[in-house]
Amino acid sequence: MKELQLSDACAVALGAGILGTGGGGNTYLGRIWLETEFRARNVSCRVIEADEVDDSAVVCAIGTMGAPTVGIEKIPRGDELENTVRVLESHIGSSFEAIIIGEIGGANALKPLICALQMDLPVVDGDGMGRAFPELQMDSFAIGGLDLSPLALGDCHRNQVVLHSVSGPVQAERYARNLTIEMGGSTALAMPMMTGHELKRTLIRKTLSLAKALGETVLEAREVGKDPVERIIDLTQGQVLFRGKITDVERRTTRGFSRGTMKLAAFGDPEDHLEIHFQNENLIAYRNGRAVCTVPDLITLVEVENGEPIGTEMLRYGLRVAVIGMPAPVELKTPEALAVVGPEAFGYKNVPFQPLPGNLL
Amino acid sequence: MKELQLSDACAVALGAGILGTGGGGNTYLGRIWLETEFRARNVSCRVIEADEVDDSAVVCAIGTMGAPTVGIEKIPRGDELENTVRVLESHIGSSFEAIIIGEIGGANALKPLICALQMDLPVVDGDGMGRAFPELQMDSFAIGGLDLSPLALGDCHRNQVVLHSVSGPVQAERYARNLTIEMGGSTALAMPMMTGHELKRTLIRKTLSLAKALGETVLEAREVGKDPVERIIDLTQGQVLFRGKITDVERRTTRGFSRGTMKLAAFGDPEDHLEIHFQNENLIAYRNGRAVCTVPDLITLVEVENGEPIGTEMLRYGLRVAVIGMPAPVELKTPEALAVVGPEAFGYKNVPFQPLPGNLL
Repeated sequence: MKELQLSDACAVALGAGILGTGGGGNTYLGRIWLETEFRARNVSCRVIEADEVDDSAVVCAIGTMGAPTVGIEKIPRGDELENTVRVLESHIGSSFEAIIIGEIGGANALKPLICALQMDLPVVDGDGMGRAFPELQMDSFAIGGLDLSPLALGDCHRNQVVLHSVSGPVQAERYARNLTIEMGGSTALAMPMMTGHELKRTLIRKTLSLAKALGETVLEAREVGKDPVERIIDLTQGQVLFRGKITDVERRTTRGFSRGTMKLAAFGDPEDHLEIHFQNENLIAYRNGRAVCTVPDLITLVEVENGEPIGTEMLRYGLRVAVIGMPAPVELKTPEALAVVGPEAFGYKNVPFQPLPGNLL
Repeated sequence: MKELQLSDACAVALGAGILGTGGGGNTYLGRIWLETEFRARNVSCRVIEADEVDDSAVVCAIGTMGAPTVGIEKIPRGDELENTVRVLESHIGSSFEAIIIGEIGGANALKPLICALQMDLPVVDGDGMGRAFPELQMDSFAIGGLDLSPLALGDCHRNQVVLHSVSGPVQAERYARNLTIEMGGSTALAMPMMTGHELKRTLIRKTLSLAKALGETVLEAREVGKDPVERIIDLTQGQVLFRGKITDVERRTTRGFSRGTMKLAAFGDPEDHLEIHFQNENLIAYRNGRAVCTVPDLITLVEVENGEPIGTEMLRYGLRVAVIGMPAPVELKTPEALAVVGPEAFGYKNVPFQPLPGNLL
């Protein structure tokens, strides 16, 4: 893949939704913003491989912080991504040479493309999560030991903050989360910046290509009347964990996150039920009381008829879904990574990570 | 006054405690830190008048943010003031030519002297409050319309944040307060920066001289066996609101502030009582249910025997005190100022500001 065009926006958004495991931001809003940028500029978005970035070049990851439930109500102004990156550039006194995708899940896969178009910079094929996660310390850059500071965040009112130095990634998360709450629950985030050398060491590669391929195969399945769920499984080494109807949703937007649980009953057997806990993203699925899939493996709900992914902000009673479990990228299954993104890191002390077979990439 | 020396530290700390109205930070800890800096460097601290600053020079106010109850437990490392100023200098790409006292009350009068010694810069005689106030939007710089951003704050672990731009002083307060809570409840603060021209327009002048004179007169009164409370009153146009014993203290460290109420009973007449509400600083005094003194006028407790001021962090049952009311500086009594520092700004909707006669300066 050398570039992305307006006509690719639909597929990338769809694939990013599948990789978003419920979080990363609403892809419908993200997609129409991306399409608007494509149309306004009438250019394509250059996509490069990590190996094309000079070791000494400085690049920066981009994303949006906040609860998905806020993101669908607080409409962006349109310039906060670029403005936030510019503040960080001005703070360090140099310019970035490429845009990195902070997380490939949800609308956060699309924001870097928007920003890259605005700044006329290439985007690197890959990201820091291979999915979406709710907290900053949970990306492969932090897990790989990169300093998350300096970083910048900003809102639509031009409130802009630079975390110049932080004593660790969890501090960065806490400071940025508190600021995000004060800024209305959703902010543009430029972080981490890194050299090309550091990028090559820590990036989870080819995830933008994966998102696009996932979206394309679902769109094609719809067109030819095939089962899109089977296509998703084929491409991700995933499995269907459950097919059923959402019977209950309990969801709160609290302390900067959308947290809650949902319950589902199987088609044809209402006694067979699934419960999923989420913090922006789906974290853990219990089938009839037994954990069947946990972070960092991916748990995504899609509409059973058309494979359309369902963000945690869109959950509601009655949706008929397939719950797909997908194995995490191998980078998220090292002991160092599991300490940060395994079940225990989310407070599930007695739930071991029992990986689904295979690897996402 | 052309300079301050080691031998002045005691008087300045004492006077700043009186102007602190209970807040601004513990002056004992501030004084021994200042004395340590004087001894380590063996120099005096240059003091200049606002008019000596070039209109185009850039200067910066310094202080510490947080609850006084935290400040007496969380001991500084020693370099956080200078480090925080350096981050702001580096962010804006130029150096400050003088240090401004953000608030003359409590230890916050002493921190700028410490920082000025560390950075070999002069301090300007004056400050932004003429007393202490709990929140950032309450200084004469913000009231005078200066932008509080960019500003920097930092802690002893070298966590350092720059608020690059904020949409108003209340936003600056909220962002900085939340960060301060995350940084353990006490931070070094470099803000606002301003030109010499802006300084001359907004500074409350000569308050460092006032603090020193207040301390000197109390120290002298102690030496010659006179009543220090009378001396304080003479120098501030103040009045004794009450003499009595603290009978109850209710104090919580919450959301970054030390908040609470204290009750006092008059010497010789336990039915005659005073109740004072505080948020870091003493805000309002009710005598037998009637408001007798409110912000922005100053309410300070001093030990009745020796005139030693008592911070809200040191309140306890049984202390025998004189409660002194002092008229605010004239700069705090304009309609613009009262909207920010009057009783209503602190939530006392039905308490009009009935100024004590006179002006502090």
